[in-house]
Amino acid sequence: MIKKDLSAPRLRELIRDGQWETPTTGAAPGYVQANLAMLPRDWAFHFLLFCVRNPKPCPILDVLEPGQWEPRIAKGADLRTDLPRYRVYREGELERETEDVTDLFGDHMVSFLLGCSFSFESALIAAGVPVRNLEEEKNVSMYITNRDCITAGPFSAPLVVSMRPMTPEQAVRAVQVTTRFHLTHGAPVHLGAPEEIGVSDLGQPDFGDPVTLLPGEIPVFWACGVTTILAATSTDLPLVITHAPGHMFVSDLRDEDLTLL
Amino acid sequence: MIKKDLSAPRLRELIRDGQWETPTTGAAPGYVQANLAMLPRDWAFHFLLFCVRNPKPCPILDVLEPGQWEPRIAKGADLRTDLPRYRVYREGELERETEDVTDLFGDHMVSFLLGCSFSFESALIAAGVPVRNLEEEKNVSMYITNRDCITAGPFSAPLVVSMRPMTPEQAVRAVQVTTRFHLTHGAPVHLGAPEEIGVSDLGQPDFGDPVTLLPGEIPVFWACGVTTILAATSTDLPLVITHAPGHMFVSDLRDEDLTLL
Repeated sequence: MIKKDLSAPRLRELIRDGQWETPTTGAAPGYVQANLAMLPRDWAFHFLLFCVRNPKPCPILDVLEPGQWEPRIAKGADLRTDLPRYRVYREGELERETEDVTDLFGDHMVSFLLGCSFSFESALIAAGVPVRNLEEEKNVSMYITNRDCITAGPFSAPLVVSMRPMTPEQAVRAVQVTTRFHLTHGAPVHLGAPEEIGVSDLGQPDFGDPVTLLPGEIPVFWACGVTTILAATSTDLPLVITHAPGHMFVSDLRDEDLTLL
Repeated sequence: MIKKDLSAPRLRELIRDGQWETPTTGAAPGYVQANLAMLPRDWAFHFLLFCVRNPKPCPILDVLEPGQWEPRIAKGADLRTDLPRYRVYREGELERETEDVTDLFGDHMVSFLLGCSFSFESALIAAGVPVRNLEEEKNVSMYITNRDCITAGPFSAPLVVSMRPMTPEQAVRAVQVTTRFHLTHGAPVHLGAPEEIGVSDLGQPDFGDPVTLLPGEIPVFWACGVTTILAATSTDLPLVITHAPGHMFVSDLRDEDLTLL
């Protein structure tokens, strides 16, 4: 499957039918992609509270009623089948990856869809700001910082950030552009001094790939949705289901819709 | 008690000691005031979800863990005693008003603090936009619209709006100014054509007082926190506690902080 110029509904159909099993990066351009976390009803209040208290890493796009699988932001979609790959955690430990979680999903499961940085990367490119990870066809560099999120009930996590190198002038433009996208992490959380947030070696990201920092460039850091996944698996819940890295849920929202909500 | 130039902590102390029993309108100027709703743990997920799904009428300033009464936005405060007057609802019916809810509050109660329009009214005045209800020393006019909020579990409510009359030029300025205050209802939801949102007579508000509409002025409508109270009491919960109208919780946040969060 190499055709990437698909609509979101068509892409979800291909995924559901087992004809698209790869990451969704760059697929259905212009449509908002989302992080997924599913967990049992008994923990849903505190997990929602964690997201509300930490809106930069955990921007809420949609939360479904217990047992529901069709999000408001994607009519006709089924969250149990419409992501190319899922991760299943039990008692906080990764158990396995799978392409379908219908058998695991019951009346007690609550689904959370959270913004990811794909949307604002398109806006950065449109504004003439380079996105090095796309240029180098790598995963974005992600780092675990020394900053703690605000806890909620049993959920806690360090703030995880993604990093994009650019000139100081481009960084100013990037702040302006991404401020409008508060539902996909918004403005940067830090720039220029990685050691201040506990990042000692940019060449050794905790997740994703290292990218090239050119002379005259500084690192610019955004809050990252991986924070949400760390929080969801930070405690010994009997069952947590998430997307597998890069295998996101593709919604019917358009990137530009996010600046209106 | 006529001295109104108080700090928020001092005002809360006076309230707690029974020395301030009147509405908080205009008191501790510059400090963010909040709507309060307290309800049992079993309904907290769905009520939080209602607020998340309807951020314009229900902007979340703080949500506390079950049984907790000291908010993060007001160190040393006690939500059981620090509002001048509360309303107690049982099975969706108003039971009584009281000045202290310590005896009603238990480990199962969850407290929600939600933005109110006092903060952006100061910003409007600073921008040269008239606030008629303040000029005429009345309560703001509030109307129940024909628009429904997005439901969550058992919670539903029509959108309630507050109205301020101004010239069309001032309305443009008001949109700009209040857009920055997304935690206190943000930009207007409607202007100019009240019949479109089901308001047939501006002189007959559903809550608050009528105010004067001068020649050349149009009505400008903002989402209103009363929506939250209608939602909290829209179903037969065993116990719901809210602030009494105008008797708000005064936090340590400053109005200008709201544009940063």
